[in-house]
Amino acid sequence: MMKYLIFLVILICSQQSVAQQNDSLFISNIYKEALSNGECYDHLRILCKEVGHRIAGSAAADSAILWGISTLKRYNLDSVYTMPVEVPHWVRGSKEVGYYTYSNNKVELEIVALGGSVGSERAITANVIEVKSIAELRLLDSAMVAGKIVFFNKAMDPMLINTGAAYGGAYDIRSQGPSEAAKKGAVGCLIRSLTLADDKYAHTGATNYDDNVRKIPAAALSSVDSRELSRLLKENPRLQFTLHLTCQNFPRKIQANVIGEIRGSEFPEKVIVVGGHLDSWDVGEGAHDDGTGVTQSIEVLRILLALGYKPRHTIRAVLYMNEEFGNDGGKTYARVVAEKNEEHIAAIESDGGGLTPLGFNVQGDEKDLLQLREWGKLLEPYQLYSFRQGWSGVDIGPLKTDSNVLYGLSVDSQRYFDFHHSNNDIFENVNKREHILGAAAMTALIYMIDQK
Amino acid sequence: MMKYLIFLVILICSQQSVAQQNDSLFISNIYKEALSNGECYDHLRILCKEVGHRIAGSAAADSAILWGISTLKRYNLDSVYTMPVEVPHWVRGSKEVGYYTYSNNKVELEIVALGGSVGSERAITANVIEVKSIAELRLLDSAMVAGKIVFFNKAMDPMLINTGAAYGGAYDIRSQGPSEAAKKGAVGCLIRSLTLADDKYAHTGATNYDDNVRKIPAAALSSVDSRELSRLLKENPRLQFTLHLTCQNFPRKIQANVIGEIRGSEFPEKVIVVGGHLDSWDVGEGAHDDGTGVTQSIEVLRILLALGYKPRHTIRAVLYMNEEFGNDGGKTYARVVAEKNEEHIAAIESDGGGLTPLGFNVQGDEKDLLQLREWGKLLEPYQLYSFRQGWSGVDIGPLKTDSNVLYGLSVDSQRYFDFHHSNNDIFENVNKREHILGAAAMTALIYMIDQK
Repeated sequence: MMKYLIFLVILICSQQSVAQQNDSLFISNIYKEALSNGECYDHLRILCKEVGHRIAGSAAADSAILWGISTLKRYNLDSVYTMPVEVPHWVRGSKEVGYYTYSNNKVELEIVALGGSVGSERAITANVIEVKSIAELRLLDSAMVAGKIVFFNKAMDPMLINTGAAYGGAYDIRSQGPSEAAKKGAVGCLIRSLTLADDKYAHTGATNYDDNVRKIPAAALSSVDSRELSRLLKENPRLQFTLHLTCQNFPRKIQANVIGEIRGSEFPEKVIVVGGHLDSWDVGEGAHDDGTGVTQSIEVLRILLALGYKPRHTIRAVLYMNEEFGNDGGKTYARVVAEKNEEHIAAIESDGGGLTPLGFNVQGDEKDLLQLREWGKLLEPYQLYSFRQGWSGVDIGPLKTDSNVLYGLSVDSQRYFDFHHSNNDIFENVNKREHILGAAAMTALIYMIDQK
Repeated sequence: MMKYLIFLVILICSQQSVAQQNDSLFISNIYKEALSNGECYDHLRILCKEVGHRIAGSAAADSAILWGISTLKRYNLDSVYTMPVEVPHWVRGSKEVGYYTYSNNKVELEIVALGGSVGSERAITANVIEVKSIAELRLLDSAMVAGKIVFFNKAMDPMLINTGAAYGGAYDIRSQGPSEAAKKGAVGCLIRSLTLADDKYAHTGATNYDDNVRKIPAAALSSVDSRELSRLLKENPRLQFTLHLTCQNFPRKIQANVIGEIRGSEFPEKVIVVGGHLDSWDVGEGAHDDGTGVTQSIEVLRILLALGYKPRHTIRAVLYMNEEFGNDGGKTYARVVAEKNEEHIAAIESDGGGLTPLGFNVQGDEKDLLQLREWGKLLEPYQLYSFRQGWSGVDIGPLKTDSNVLYGLSVDSQRYFDFHHSNNDIFENVNKREHILGAAAMTALIYMIDQK
């Protein structure tokens, strides 16, 4: 009996080890295919250079949808289709005007309206009151703020090695700052751009007005201009700032998520979804945010097909429309999934930029983390080492249930906020290998989920 | 007795734990100082933009020496001095001419002479024979090669995640290719640039002629031009290539390593040395190779001084002159150390680019690796995780003895060879945070070595 048991243990162990060797070999083939024949960087170039930036609601976003369909249709997928999504339609208008005057000097600045900002019928000229945070503003008497432009000069914390955490720590000045300023009677709002770089790029991004407060125009200044304005305000507290935005909101309209899939051979009704968002802000080219995630997701399908892999579960790439300004794409997708009673066993997102991958974050329980770490051992040869519980992605967030697991591609974030939501987010700032390695990592994870 | 022993164990453990907490706190202060007040990126800008590229033997290298002295003298070091180093003096000459002609087409290329190449009295025009490797060339009959230009079209292996290994695997075509071609009677040599990028930059670097063989002119083509030349050679085997280099060797001359140090408070005779190389190739700006290593090394001293740290051992930054073409700086430094009977307990080098640090390689025994991994635990909060036995650096290599340990800063290498030895190696391609994080990591390691 004992002999039999020992034999059984050896048998199981050796089968496990054979399975692991097979997995290692397949993952190695994934990387070989990605690094030798990768197509995602070429796709990214076309998305960035021919479609360009593509805010939800815009004609460029329509072009991006058509680009998504035709790009997915290049491959031998089982289906490529769209899912209608209602999106906002906000238009920046003509080039923002922002300048300050003091003594006899007039200094024009490159400013950028925050996404969703109202316009001003005519140029607003007012004194500026600088605060470092919303908390500091709340302590001020309304009389000190009324009629002025509030300038939130809060920097991202350079000490945080994970720059996403630094963004999270300063993000409130953009999302809530304008309404908080309006509560005190301000007529306009300026924020220091959410970036760690010391440069002249202004960074936009959504602001979320409180519906119970007057909506005031809001724009971002570059980090360099913010420092200079702050310095001048100390010398010239009566300095005047002129702000003129011509942004407009139009009625919501219908655009679409773009979807491509390979049907599962064993469990076609169970879905593993991978994606990024197709929309971008209306500056730069939406390269890192999130052209890279979109093209990596398409590349996952391409690699699996190129290797002749027949997935057991359905593998679906979703290019979500409108992550940036209300997450309509992700919410709509999750709603449709629930309506159709589709089972999603896992969702993966890449929305941290096409930078060197470090590993994956998992949104799940302790057991899911342990499973990810087990898989992670097979990814060590590819310099992936970071497997933690944490943030997955905005688009896939609404998909979370008790029975599925969400994963976010974790990347080296040091440069990300140099580009994010600015004219600096262009194709040339994406490195081909870094981009491809992200796609390969996601493909490897999906393979392991599919094999489980 | 037992009670006493238990008490002793608890006492030791708690002291260790207090020491660890102190170390954690000090390392946190190192990062805070680096990320809040870092000066190395400004120094790098001046080195790149005001001195520019600075090949050993050149007037620019003289300027770099003066820059090094004056930059180190900004800080309150115990001494700043130079150490004479004899270096080669090779001059590229006028812009290289390279073009091919076939049918009635003439196509001019951006080529770059390999470092150390001889010139050609007049332009050489010859047929081209393409080989993929030195091994393939050796199999050819001399009659097939004589009178021709040998074109080594060997790509770096994209599958190697550590791109330094890919460089190591293709490096022989540059170092030995020209002499191997000459052995077969070739009149000139072209190589595909050592890069993983698909672009039009040509990458130089040292070639090492075999003194027993005729020296023939040698240059590099970009990866894109190499692919195109290869394609055309299949269609037009009689295609002719014209190559004209005007490189010249001049007598060796004396330049210098630049050294700054903080004397140790307990063991001034024991030295921990940190460095990078001051020279660069004579293209681009020598930003990643190795302006970043040089400025990070200076930053290590600055951070320790700014924190009021009194090192137990002498901490010395060495800016080595001429790593690129014979390692004279490193060899001279090691020789002087031996002559003076100075004890060096550790040497650290940064020469892999100012990219996101991953950890350190250690050139030492198993015990040294275990010690590094122990220290590494304190560096995990800074996303450092790679602690392995391996390559440290060219400059410090000659310092190795049985009793000391060498460390190389290990960085994310995906982009490095896009820049390396080309006109693309400029300041703008260095990210401030990535650069600073390398300096902070080196400072933390030196602190731990000093405290041991």
